[in-house]
Amino acid sequence: MTEFVTAIESKNISLEFANRLLEAAVQKGKELGIPFSIAIVDKVGNLKAFAAMDGAPVLSLEIAQNKAFSAAAYNRATHEWYDRLKDDPPLLHGIVHTERLVIFGGGYPIKINDELIGGIGVSGGHYSHDMQVCEAALEVASEFNSKVV
Amino acid sequence: MTEFVTAIESKNISLEFANRLLEAAVQKGKELGIPFSIAIVDKVGNLKAFAAMDGAPVLSLEIAQNKAFSAAAYNRATHEWYDRLKDDPPLLHGIVHTERLVIFGGGYPIKINDELIGGIGVSGGHYSHDMQVCEAALEVASEFNSKVV
Amino acid sequence: MTEFVTAIESKNISLEFANRLLEAAVQKGKELGIPFSIAIVDKVGNLKAFAAMDGAPVLSLEIAQNKAFSAAAYNRATHEWYDRLKDDPPLLHGIVHTERLVIFGGGYPIKINDELIGGIGVSGGHYSHDMQVCEAALEVASEFNSKVV
Amino acid sequence: MTEFVTAIESKNISLEFANRLLEAAVQKGKELGIPFSIAIVDKVGNLKAFAAMDGAPVLSLEIAQNKAFSAAAYNRATHEWYDRLKDDPPLLHGIVHTERLVIFGGGYPIKINDELIGGIGVSGGHYSHDMQVCEAALEVASEFNSKVV
Repeated sequence: MTEFVTAIESKNISLEFANRLLEAAVQKGKELGIPFSIAIVDKVGNLKAFAAMDGAPVLSLEIAQNKAFSAAAYNRATHEWYDRLKDDPPLLHGIVHTERLVIFGGGYPIKINDELIGGIGVSGGHYSHDMQVCEAALEVASEFNSKVV
Repeated sequence: MTEFVTAIESKNISLEFANRLLEAAVQKGKELGIPFSIAIVDKVGNLKAFAAMDGAPVLSLEIAQNKAFSAAAYNRATHEWYDRLKDDPPLLHGIVHTERLVIFGGGYPIKINDELIGGIGVSGGHYSHDMQVCEAALEVASEFNSKVV
Repeated sequence: MTEFVTAIESKNISLEFANRLLEAAVQKGKELGIPFSIAIVDKVGNLKAFAAMDGAPVLSLEIAQNKAFSAAAYNRATHEWYDRLKDDPPLLHGIVHTERLVIFGGGYPIKINDELIGGIGVSGGHYSHDMQVCEAALEVASEFNSKVV
Repeated sequence: MTEFVTAIESKNISLEFANRLLEAAVQKGKELGIPFSIAIVDKVGNLKAFAAMDGAPVLSLEIAQNKAFSAAAYNRATHEWYDRLKDDPPLLHGIVHTERLVIFGGGYPIKINDELIGGIGVSGGHYSHDMQVCEAALEVASEFNSKVV
């Protein structure tokens, strides 16, 4: 007999961890000499922590949040979208209009031991710079992966 | 030494359970002879399951969803708001403008063993009818509370 | 003498039928091993019934509803749009911005004996998967077509 | 001869200072034992820094941001609105519909030597709690006022 399941258990990013990632991202931004906006969202895409570096362009505030949302809400890094779209014209012309969906680099899922717990989004430079900032933050996350028992 | 917490564990309503509550709500609606809209959301207020009974007024579609959202997003039954607002004029004139917040009856948090796992919202009758439909559904939930070990 | 027409009769999907389609769609989703969001709307595109399978990506909740809306609101399966747009640049670059319009697969009109009574929209996989789920549900609808006298 | 003025100089909150205020607010939230959302905006109301404490209700995410926006965008603490509205019916029934305007406590301008540089908004408890959290953060700001030469 199959058991009736009333609720599904899952993990969600803590503020403490979100702030650690934010700090690493800001540090990387300073190294690159570019003022970025950096957003951390929880596993359903709700804002958890945010920082706009001094001088970050106004447009970057929302793009960073949308990238983080996109990454968590579809469990896919935003730079992975284009390869899947480029030879699929209906998607290429269609899905890009989805509200808050960003299909260029700078948004990554945050995972602990392969479980999605949140997302990070960065905006302010070319997306190749934004991606470097995300990756610097996610290195912090990867350290924690090895520590979790 | 305090341990660093990367993620918070929590429970979220399953589709199976949401459908069970929906079924009980529709059943109660038929007994009352009123066509209701009934929405079940997860613990962060995202839509999980929905049914509009045949003849449900168009306005009820969104109100039901907003009630369920309100109940989950603030962990409070919607009919409990007014008592807290009526002698607090700034809130009474202010918080009612919050997007998607409903302050009259027909939205309830769904809990298992006191943990919030979702919300239910009903619209279509006077809110006193809407509340009866919610309560009929939540009786199903309460049965499961006693079963959880 | 021409008769004066005060009102037009039409058919609209019942909740009972919508739930039957929803159930078949969820069943197909389980077979594919992908968590989908599935929306059924009535003939004017208003939400009738909805289910988000456990683990369905957050983005899929709204896309599923928009696909169902698109299908009913234009009486056209969403995958049929691109062929009509691709050699018509004004439409290709213009109509895709229409709010809630989806132009890739996963949304179908629901008809009984060729009369539009609603729409179904599915999201969660590639649109080719989403289409399979819709088609599984619509097979149920086709059984009813043959039964109607 | 009057000099032609091409641009106006102004001060805006730094990320470093915003984070200091955020930290003090989170600390106060822990003391009160309530999970708050805390938003810091710059002098034009754009998001500068944000933190959602673990367990903060979903509704608080946006209300906190709106309070901070209201405070900076009108250079007025949100709890000061109601006294100005209560005997002015056109405003009382009209201005409360302004998008993002919050008229109950929990939003404060941030000033250095009487110059507006940003805003703070807190949500999660009754607004009297939200105000305590803001005030704890603004004490940090007042320390800096005395230091400025």
